[in-house]
Formats: sequence, C-alpha cells, structure tokens
Amino acid sequence: MKIGILGATGAVGRQMIDCLIERKMDVEELRLFASSSSKGKKIAFKESEIAVQEVKDNSFEGLDYVLGAVGNELSKRYWPLMQKAHAVFVDNSSAFRMDEDVPLIVPEINGEDALKHKGLIANPNCSTIITMMAVAPINRLSRIRYMYASTYQAVSGAGIKGFDELTQQIEKLRNNERFEPKVFRKQIAFNCIPEIGSYLDNGYTSEEMKMQNEGSKILHLPELKVSCTCVRVPVYRSHAISVSLVCEDKLDLKDVRKAIDGSENVEYKDDIPTQAEVSDKDIVYVGRLRKDLCNDNGISLWCCGDQIRKGAATNAVEIIEYLEKHK
Amino acid sequence: MKIGILGATGAVGRQMIDCLIERKMDVEELRLFASSSSKGKKIAFKESEIAVQEVKDNSFEGLDYVLGAVGNELSKRYWPLMQKAHAVFVDNSSAFRMDEDVPLIVPEINGEDALKHKGLIANPNCSTIITMMAVAPINRLSRIRYMYASTYQAVSGAGIKGFDELTQQIEKLRNNERFEPKVFRKQIAFNCIPEIGSYLDNGYTSEEMKMQNEGSKILHLPELKVSCTCVRVPVYRSHAISVSLVCEDKLDLKDVRKAIDGSENVEYKDDIPTQAEVSDKDIVYVGRLRKDLCNDNGISLWCCGDQIRKGAATNAVEIIEYLEKHK
Repeated sequence: MKIGILGATGAVGRQMIDCLIERKMDVEELRLFASSSSKGKKIAFKESEIAVQEVKDNSFEGLDYVLGAVGNELSKRYWPLMQKAHAVFVDNSSAFRMDEDVPLIVPEINGEDALKHKGLIANPNCSTIITMMAVAPINRLSRIRYMYASTYQAVSGAGIKGFDELTQQIEKLRNNERFEPKVFRKQIAFNCIPEIGSYLDNGYTSEEMKMQNEGSKILHLPELKVSCTCVRVPVYRSHAISVSLVCEDKLDLKDVRKAIDGSENVEYKDDIPTQAEVSDKDIVYVGRLRKDLCNDNGISLWCCGDQIRKGAATNAVEIIEYLEKHK
Repeated sequence: MKIGILGATGAVGRQMIDCLIERKMDVEELRLFASSSSKGKKIAFKESEIAVQEVKDNSFEGLDYVLGAVGNELSKRYWPLMQKAHAVFVDNSSAFRMDEDVPLIVPEINGEDALKHKGLIANPNCSTIITMMAVAPINRLSRIRYMYASTYQAVSGAGIKGFDELTQQIEKLRNNERFEPKVFRKQIAFNCIPEIGSYLDNGYTSEEMKMQNEGSKILHLPELKVSCTCVRVPVYRSHAISVSLVCEDKLDLKDVRKAIDGSENVEYKDDIPTQAEVSDKDIVYVGRLRKDLCNDNGISLWCCGDQIRKGAATNAVEIIEYLEKHK
C-alpha cells in the first residue's frame, strides 16, 4: 500500500505512523505531510527516515490512502486533490462526518458501511468512538432509545499544547506564580472545565452534540437521543465516560456482560478501569456495569479509552485494514 | 451559645471553627474534642487559644450544641453522652441520616424539618448538599421524578490524607519514581477513579446511593429515583456534579433560571463555573443550564461547591443558625 499522512507531526499524525508500524501494515511508500514550519523534518519509519513535505497539487498522486489528522479547514481544502488522485481519504476531522455520502466508521461496529464509500470515509469524534465501543454490544441485544453521558476528557484532546498547559500550570502553582489560561478558558490544573467546543443554540456544545449525531449515524439509530455533558479534566491522556442508557427492552446484566465480553477490542474490568491504565492501549475498557435506578430498561456503566489511539489514529488505521480485508 | 466540636483537628472540624468566627456567631464557650493524639494541642479561636481535649463522660455537660465531624462509629459512641447532657448534636457522619426520627437538613431547602428534632440533626453527604442546592429551586417549580448525576469529587473529600496523596503522586511522577496508591485504590494523579465508598448489592457504591436516599429525604420526594456515578478526580478542593433531571412538567428555561437566581446561597454563572473558583466560598455555583435532549420534561445543568464548606462545615453551622433564629 502507498499511504499518505496529512498532519504527520501532530499528536494524532505521529500515532498513525506508530500504528502502521505496530500493526505490521504492508506499506510500500509513506508520504508525510505537514505545514511549512515542519518542512524537511525527518521522521523515522521502520528502517528509513522520511522527510516531511508540504502539500502540493500532485502530492497525492499514486497513493492508495490518505490518513487525515488536520482540522476541518485543511481537510476541506485538500480533499479535492485526493479525489483527483483517486486516493481514498480517511479523515479524522469533523468536516464531512455528517455528510450523507460519507460513511462514519468504527470498524468493529459498522465496518460494512465503509465498503460503500465514494473515496472519503470519516473517523468519528474520540469520545464518541470510545462510548460507542462500550454501548454497541448492548445495542445489539436491544436498541438504545436514549442515553445520558458525562465525559472526563484528557487535556491531550486539545493537542500537545493542551498537554503542556497542564504541566505549566501545575509548575506555576507549585512555585506560587501567577498564570493566565491560554489553551483552556479556565485553569485546568486541579480543576474541571465543563466546556469543550463551541456553543450551539440549544445550549449544548459542538463536542456534546457529536455524541448524539455521530452516535446515531454509527449505530443506525435515527431516533437515538443523547444528553451529553463534555468536561475537560486534569488528566494527560485517555478519555472516560459515565454512561446511562435506556433500551427498548429490559435486559439481564449477565447477558449484557456476555455481549461486552464477546466484543472485539473491548475489555470488561471487574477491577475499576481508569484512564491511566488504558493509556497507550488500542482497546476500550468497560466497568461499573449495573442496572440504572431510574428506568427498568436502563443500564449504567463507565468506559475509557486512549483518545489518541482508539479514539483517533488506531480507528483510522483499522478502517484501512477493514477495506483491504474486504476488497 | 456554648458549642462543642467533635473531631476539631480534621479538615471539616477546623473549617467549623473558622465558620463560627466568620459568621460572627455568639459563642460564649467553645470546647474542642479530638483523639488522644491531639490532646493538649492549642487552636486559636478569636482572641483566645483553646486546648483540645479528649471526650470524657461529662464532656458535653452545659453545652447547647455539639458539631460532629467524626466518623459513624464515634458519632454513635458519643451521641448517648450528648443526649444525657441535653446538648443538640448536629452530626456530619452518615450514622443517623436515614433514621426516621432524625431530620436531615439543608437549611435553605428544608430548614423547617430541623425544628422537629429530638436532640439530633444530621448534616447530609457533601455531593448531595451541593446537588440539592442546585436542583431544589427546580423542584419547587415542578416535582423531580428522576435524576442522573455524575460527580467530579475532590481528593480532600477523603480528608487531609487524600490531599497529600495527590501531591505526593504528582511529585513521584515528576521524578520518575514508583509509588503505591494508599488512600485511593488506584493512581489519582492525572487519573479519575469511578469508585467512592463501598459496594452495595445493586452494584452502586454507598456514596452513590446517598444521592438517592438523602436527596429523597431532603426534598420530601419518597418516589425520587437517582442513578448516580461518583468519581474521584485529581482536584484538591470542591466537588462538581453533572446533572440531568426529569420533572413532572415541562419547564421553561427562563423560569428555571429565575428560580435559581432567586435562591439563597446559589449563584448562576453564565461564564462556566468551576471548582477552583468556588473553593473557599459558602455558596453553590450553577451553570450550563439547558433542556435535556432525551426528555421534554428534562433539564441538564452543572453545579459545584466547596465540599468542606457548604458540603459540610458551613451547612452544619447554618443548621445551628436556623435553630437559633426559630426558637
């Protein structure tokens, strides 16, 4: 395979390179793209070093796949060039996720949707992927009608600058020095911030609505309702989500547990799963499974996953694996 | 008034002393009680210094009130001595909270219940007080039927040793040294732990069931159902709670906002309220008010409060103020 990575120097882009190596993907050629400031930078790949290049009009010619790890604007700008070059774009931005023509894929859940792609496949939001991995096994037993989710999201969800801001603020507080929040709107050291994304008219944030809109598309549940609260917590890596969901039927916890145990890349932990333990792993941990006390058809659980791996890079690479396996 | 404080050297006990001073309570005599290890220790109170003493059989004679800041076992052991001495016990432990004869009081919500006391009044669980302060104004508009709550609880909820464990683990990680979790069952530095309290048969923890059982008693809602997930987060002080509740009627957000604005010791923040900002304050902050997307009669919000102040010490002192005002 000939693969390109757009945004190869960021946290997700670098993880994509590592995933290609770890998963022993048969990569004949790898092209790494980033902004002009990274041009010429060398990044190790297997036995070679690859120089980072800027995107040019013919950059994608001859590639089979391009993995996108850039923002909406750049994804939109470069997609026509990939289309022209007949390179399949697996995009991690939210630019195309809700487009009718664009499959939104978590391979373990709706991989078959990817086979209908028209050159562009979207990788879902990180918290949404992790939550869907945990609840899809339940949805297979009985359709989910609605869901409450409160997230505990790591600072690296805002990139390397989010990671650095937490470190710097802790250092400042330690030395009794003043500081101004920059990446996050309020202090993140020893504090939780219930605001991720921009506000919509209904009072929810863009990040919160992804759980409903993308969740509904991934699970093929057009009627799914989700009330989500997204919260940034002073954790470096991996997101966790407290979930309560209500199904069409009353489920037995034993059956739910069996369904989770039988799911690929999901692991149930009797000993409470935490973000620190799931970090740098490609799977989603689920725990605290119990009956919801508000509704007889309800289930509550806790799940967590590495948002840079399964929440982004790993999922994107798995989409390519799925396409290759089913072509 | 003649007041005793049981557990005067702990985080809550010390805060009780500060509250008595800050609120200019007319304290004629203050007796401070703690374990033998603190015996003789001097604690400043207004212009004097008070020596900490151990509890003896006649320790509570002549006192009007005893503020309890000790665990269940000690509260149970000493209550008969207070009863004999006719000192009113305002207990912060959970030993008596659900007893039918014991009022469970948040003065702003159900202060009048305190007037029926039989010598013993219970102070509710910290997260429950903070959540009830935020939702009681909504319950006055339309009765709450059920509620989903996910908490973001500070390490100082586990006392000074919880506070120290977070500091020590951050220091160890900074120096690349190994450590074993002691106070919390897993690493708390840069990690969230979805487990507070001991497990009950239904899979919920004792801390989680307090939100339902105590909430139901405080709000006079015997049918109230609460599905709660309690999570320890790497924050030093103050608890936050993500709440979604469903009422009997469909409410207008403007009316809800007006009800919150009109409530004593609750402040609505258009700029997202956070734990760091509410710390060392005696009020509860509410924000992120919006319609629940799962149910037409639902409301979602975020609230936070200082669990040592309004979640414990301040609330206990306010109970005495209420009794004094209405005697």
